[in-house]
Amino acid sequence: MIEVFQAGHALAAEAARYTAMGWMRGTSGNLSVTLDHDPLRLVVTASGLDKGELSAADVVVVDAAGEALPDQLQRPSAEAGLHARIAAVAGAGAVVHLHMLAPVIAAERWPGGIELRDLEMLKGFGRAAHDDLVTIPVIPNSQDMRVLGDAFEAGFDPATPALVVARHGVYVWGEDLMAARHRAECLEWLLRFKTETE
Amino acid sequence: MIEVFQAGHALAAEAARYTAMGWMRGTSGNLSVTLDHDPLRLVVTASGLDKGELSAADVVVVDAAGEALPDQLQRPSAEAGLHARIAAVAGAGAVVHLHMLAPVIAAERWPGGIELRDLEMLKGFGRAAHDDLVTIPVIPNSQDMRVLGDAFEAGFDPATPALVVARHGVYVWGEDLMAARHRAECLEWLLRFKTETE
Amino acid sequence: MIEVFQAGHALAAEAARYTAMGWMRGTSGNLSVTLDHDPLRLVVTASGLDKGELSAADVVVVDAAGEALPDQLQRPSAEAGLHARIAAVAGAGAVVHLHMLAPVIAAERWPGGIELRDLEMLKGFGRAAHDDLVTIPVIPNSQDMRVLGDAFEAGFDPATPALVVARHGVYVWGEDLMAARHRAECLEWLLRFKTETE
Amino acid sequence: MIEVFQAGHALAAEAARYTAMGWMRGTSGNLSVTLDHDPLRLVVTASGLDKGELSAADVVVVDAAGEALPDQLQRPSAEAGLHARIAAVAGAGAVVHLHMLAPVIAAERWPGGIELRDLEMLKGFGRAAHDDLVTIPVIPNSQDMRVLGDAFEAGFDPATPALVVARHGVYVWGEDLMAARHRAECLEWLLRFKTETE
Repeated sequence: MIEVFQAGHALAAEAARYTAMGWMRGTSGNLSVTLDHDPLRLVVTASGLDKGELSAADVVVVDAAGEALPDQLQRPSAEAGLHARIAAVAGAGAVVHLHMLAPVIAAERWPGGIELRDLEMLKGFGRAAHDDLVTIPVIPNSQDMRVLGDAFEAGFDPATPALVVARHGVYVWGEDLMAARHRAECLEWLLRFKTETE
Repeated sequence: MIEVFQAGHALAAEAARYTAMGWMRGTSGNLSVTLDHDPLRLVVTASGLDKGELSAADVVVVDAAGEALPDQLQRPSAEAGLHARIAAVAGAGAVVHLHMLAPVIAAERWPGGIELRDLEMLKGFGRAAHDDLVTIPVIPNSQDMRVLGDAFEAGFDPATPALVVARHGVYVWGEDLMAARHRAECLEWLLRFKTETE
Repeated sequence: MIEVFQAGHALAAEAARYTAMGWMRGTSGNLSVTLDHDPLRLVVTASGLDKGELSAADVVVVDAAGEALPDQLQRPSAEAGLHARIAAVAGAGAVVHLHMLAPVIAAERWPGGIELRDLEMLKGFGRAAHDDLVTIPVIPNSQDMRVLGDAFEAGFDPATPALVVARHGVYVWGEDLMAARHRAECLEWLLRFKTETE
Repeated sequence: MIEVFQAGHALAAEAARYTAMGWMRGTSGNLSVTLDHDPLRLVVTASGLDKGELSAADVVVVDAAGEALPDQLQRPSAEAGLHARIAAVAGAGAVVHLHMLAPVIAAERWPGGIELRDLEMLKGFGRAAHDDLVTIPVIPNSQDMRVLGDAFEAGFDPATPALVVARHGVYVWGEDLMAARHRAECLEWLLRFKTETE
């Protein structure tokens, strides 16, 4: 399917970029784009591969449970289930899960949620630069995507397109891969600023 | 107009370079060159685009108020107004507005102005290496370019080609893009040095 | 021998990658792949060369003592002896010795061994993300590879594919160069996290 | 002269590499190779240019005082005088002057000299890994190259191929550009290690 190939091409390029930034060390992290919202279909990067060396074929089409559709050549990450949950709940067109250091360090200091406010970079994250208290939710790590998904949904605020999983990494989403990238880049900057100044 | 195209080409290349350094995260920051001083005309990077992927056409010609001239295809950033104000007041040939982390962290510690002195790198910033107290002005953030412009002008010292906007980013200027780049690079070094040693 | 040339090509590419990350400064560090387990034969990067500029010919075949086989054109690093010991004891297919800063800083704070636990990135290192206490062994530095080898073997745990040599660097291994790379990248992340949060 | 052109080519490539590492911000720093020891002739990078964009022609031949020989097209940096002094006193084949942050931060904490000892990376700097106390000399900054040169010579130890100029940068030398690079890279690592662990 041409849409899957195009998505795979975009996902591979984006993953190489994140790898160069040190945000997808080893085979960590995964990226997805939403192919269809009803029924939910996501194209997600395949599991177990070096994220700096993906090809357009290194993707899997998954359903709302993060399970691979029949006849897929690659295996999806277990985390595809959380990608699908975020796509469903937030209506996201793209979700990026990155092992950035800054959000994990910030979550260690502010395990109840990371508050940001009155910073211009919040505009790049999709919020206001002034008088808008933004709380990045932090949830405990788990290997069970339903547990993570329930914790995500319990704390979901449609205005906040990110979720930190403690001692693990961050999920950021948007209408497409570019929007998710811009929000992820701005969030990383904001969390380094907060950690270094508070 | 060939000058606009040439400026656009130079601005795109410079923006890609700053993006690679992490100083234009998301769509943040903007760069301009002065086309004419009387009446004031600036070529400024367009709003809302990834600054690492600009083409020579992703620029807008603006007037002294930062408003786009008629028939421009792209939308200028609101911050074009401050670029124009700096170009007018300082007589700059190029202004770069970057979301570097170091100046914003320094401004948090020294909100009344950041003092630098007796450092060789000050020469690269356009000042003397010895016995020359340099104060980088810090002004509060605002979304109103006239407010920012008035604060800039109130504290303007012709010998100091930079302005930090608290919790936001930095403006640096010079006679051309290369001069602005060199000053910006040296300033970033100086502010990291100061923050890490004081 | 074609296998040696192929290994040399892979080692040169991998060394260039590590150099770009700042983990093989100067001529420091060395990489090896196991050619044969019985008798033990390793292809190891040659001594004294810039690790960012190796060619496929800049390798040496060594035996279980790290000594060059006859007719080798290059000189092996003295550290080839520890590569061979690790390959023999751990059954590794590839060993990377890197002068990363993070493990050496961590070893200074936790000279008796660096404990990691309950972190998702441990999966990329080959361990579990939960309820699995991982201790990265730290041994004192020495120029005698038998001393280092004995200390390594005394603390060897088959489940832990890394060894920190205090005030020196780190050894990481796996079934092939890619596995060793992924573990090394994840370990570096984990040690920066630990040092910055504890 | 073909040797000058070859030196210019090597200096430009080396300067681009250092620029990418952030060690020649703006137009800062300069590199030289010794063309002749008697009478002393150095090829040194020209003043006032972006060090990431030099061509092979952007060099100047200078004498033992750092003064340009007749008919040179470019202007040498004032610092060429210190390059020449180091080449004469230490017999160096190449001298690199870099505006690294780490040595300048370390000099702020240890203005009487920076002591290093029992670190493997000292081998890459040209010293022993054990039981060899290395003191990197620190001298006060000055714009007078004779003052800097006298201070350098007063503290010169033939075994220590580096000099830190406080609140300025570092000089490192060796028999050729590659040796100087390796020593500079190792020294930077060592000084970050020391600053972060002591």
